[in-house]
Amino acid sequence: MKAYIIQNENALYHECGFSCDNGMFIRFDEENAFFLTDARYTTEAAEFITNATVVDAKRELAKCAKTLIRKFAPKSVAYDPKDFSVERFGKLSSNLKVRFIPLPNLSLKKREIKTLEDINALKKAADEGKKAFERFGDFIKSQGFGMSEEELFFNAELLFKDRGKLSLSFPPIVAINENAAKPHALPTKKKLREGDLLLLDAGVLCERYCSDRTRSVEVSGDFTFSKEQKFKDALKQKVYDTVLLAQQSAIKAAKEGVRACDIDKAARDVIDKAGFGKYFVHSTGHGVGLDIHELPVISSKSQTIIAENMLFTIEPGIYLPDKFGVRIEDMVVIQNGKALVL
Amino acid sequence: MKAYIIQNENALYHECGFSCDNGMFIRFDEENAFFLTDARYTTEAAEFITNATVVDAKRELAKCAKTLIRKFAPKSVAYDPKDFSVERFGKLSSNLKVRFIPLPNLSLKKREIKTLEDINALKKAADEGKKAFERFGDFIKSQGFGMSEEELFFNAELLFKDRGKLSLSFPPIVAINENAAKPHALPTKKKLREGDLLLLDAGVLCERYCSDRTRSVEVSGDFTFSKEQKFKDALKQKVYDTVLLAQQSAIKAAKEGVRACDIDKAARDVIDKAGFGKYFVHSTGHGVGLDIHELPVISSKSQTIIAENMLFTIEPGIYLPDKFGVRIEDMVVIQNGKALVL
Repeated sequence: MKAYIIQNENALYHECGFSCDNGMFIRFDEENAFFLTDARYTTEAAEFITNATVVDAKRELAKCAKTLIRKFAPKSVAYDPKDFSVERFGKLSSNLKVRFIPLPNLSLKKREIKTLEDINALKKAADEGKKAFERFGDFIKSQGFGMSEEELFFNAELLFKDRGKLSLSFPPIVAINENAAKPHALPTKKKLREGDLLLLDAGVLCERYCSDRTRSVEVSGDFTFSKEQKFKDALKQKVYDTVLLAQQSAIKAAKEGVRACDIDKAARDVIDKAGFGKYFVHSTGHGVGLDIHELPVISSKSQTIIAENMLFTIEPGIYLPDKFGVRIEDMVVIQNGKALVL
Repeated sequence: MKAYIIQNENALYHECGFSCDNGMFIRFDEENAFFLTDARYTTEAAEFITNATVVDAKRELAKCAKTLIRKFAPKSVAYDPKDFSVERFGKLSSNLKVRFIPLPNLSLKKREIKTLEDINALKKAADEGKKAFERFGDFIKSQGFGMSEEELFFNAELLFKDRGKLSLSFPPIVAINENAAKPHALPTKKKLREGDLLLLDAGVLCERYCSDRTRSVEVSGDFTFSKEQKFKDALKQKVYDTVLLAQQSAIKAAKEGVRACDIDKAARDVIDKAGFGKYFVHSTGHGVGLDIHELPVISSKSQTIIAENMLFTIEPGIYLPDKFGVRIEDMVVIQNGKALVL
């Protein structure tokens, strides 16, 4: 085993079931691993961490890691160059003879294939996310008409947090009609009216795991966030049906052994064939776990071979500038070789 | 003028009145400055930015910056080593002959002395923060008794956001009795009862500027978050009076021309003299602006000379482990040579 060092909070949590905003983890071999933090966190860290020695580094984490590296004298130490600022890495590596090996996505790669515990936690997060969609749907039907995107956004945050029981996995996207044509729309003063197209992309953080889901619907007095949607406007219906078919096609293509780019192609082919190819401006999906964006990347360039227990989103979309946008997103997990929708 | 490069969002905003989550700013001289972003943001950026040329860098910001550096061939480029990850800096600096000069806190140092616009915006943020304290006080009196710290935290977030009109400058600290003895307490299931000591450290983000304020109070049916507080318990009263005197003493000491460490000493001396010296475990204050923590640092080590238009917090505290904690914090600005409380 090669030595490695980590400081990202979710990476720390993945390594040892505990994290805090001032922590560093270094493993030299099977037996010697250390979690460095300061006196604010050492008591709690020692309670939770069973696979590493907790060290009070007195807010001098890089200095303390250096002392340990000198003591254990490994041949090399791997690190993620995205995980360290130039300043922190400078403090860590100056005047040390060890070779530091940059391994981009070091922790994300370790987390690309989920454990059963991860999958159960992510299923739970997905369930909580679905319930939050229902709460928000009920809210819109009872008092959402006439509210601006900003007010809807505020209430979506509230309802997704379920009175503080959950957190958000990212700020929700709540976009009406032409604003939904921007894949990362910010809420505006535009008001919701019956018959509008509403795009909601939102997720919860449930015991640290993320959910991620998108629905595009025509709001009315009795709408739901289900995938069966009827639109009065023929173009909207055509776009919607195309995105839905693209998603179904990608879910079918998502199997153990295929390349991630083949899943992307399955979605893209449907959208291309319907004549909307140039309006599908992003990739088809991304891994989800402790971080909202993990591996694998499901894009036209990704050569990742899909494996059992990978978990990712499938979220094709079509965005017609100044008109409207449609995206449909679910999380899937590869089980028994096939994609199961969470 | 020396060339410099920046990517932190608030630093970008400070340079050119606009920022986004994929931006980079590089200035070569008085006349040549560039804001690099991608097609999602170029239209809006060009609308707002008057002191730099907006460039569509097609998500390859480091590559685009390199091309510009080759073209303008400055002798050196300054950067903040905290502002760049090892990966991003590697992409930026590889195969370039220019010298990169690390200047820690490059942007924060430029923002240490506030402009009048900054000060007006921070006054407004402080006012909004005070109003939010009042809203939360009314909420507690009407329905907060019996609520857990977690529920109070959730409602504090809500009330500080004022139904979406404002954001938070940081997650509020809402801590009861012994939990308030932890300077960075997380909310627990502990319930609020009449007569409890409640510490509230919270602020709003108002048009991008932060407010920051702390009050420690004895909650009752008619309490307020004013600094005049009466405690039934004699030790609490003694600790409170000591912290209040320490704060007043530090505010008096905060003058143009003194060293920041002298302000810290003014607070620390009062607390030392009362016999609580070892329970004042943090520094006395910090600058506030677009970031919640800016310069100057008001600590026992800080040699910064206080100047007109610096703006910072004064927040001494005493934390008696397993008993309770008291902190009193206000923002002050140096005007006409003296500290004016916001």
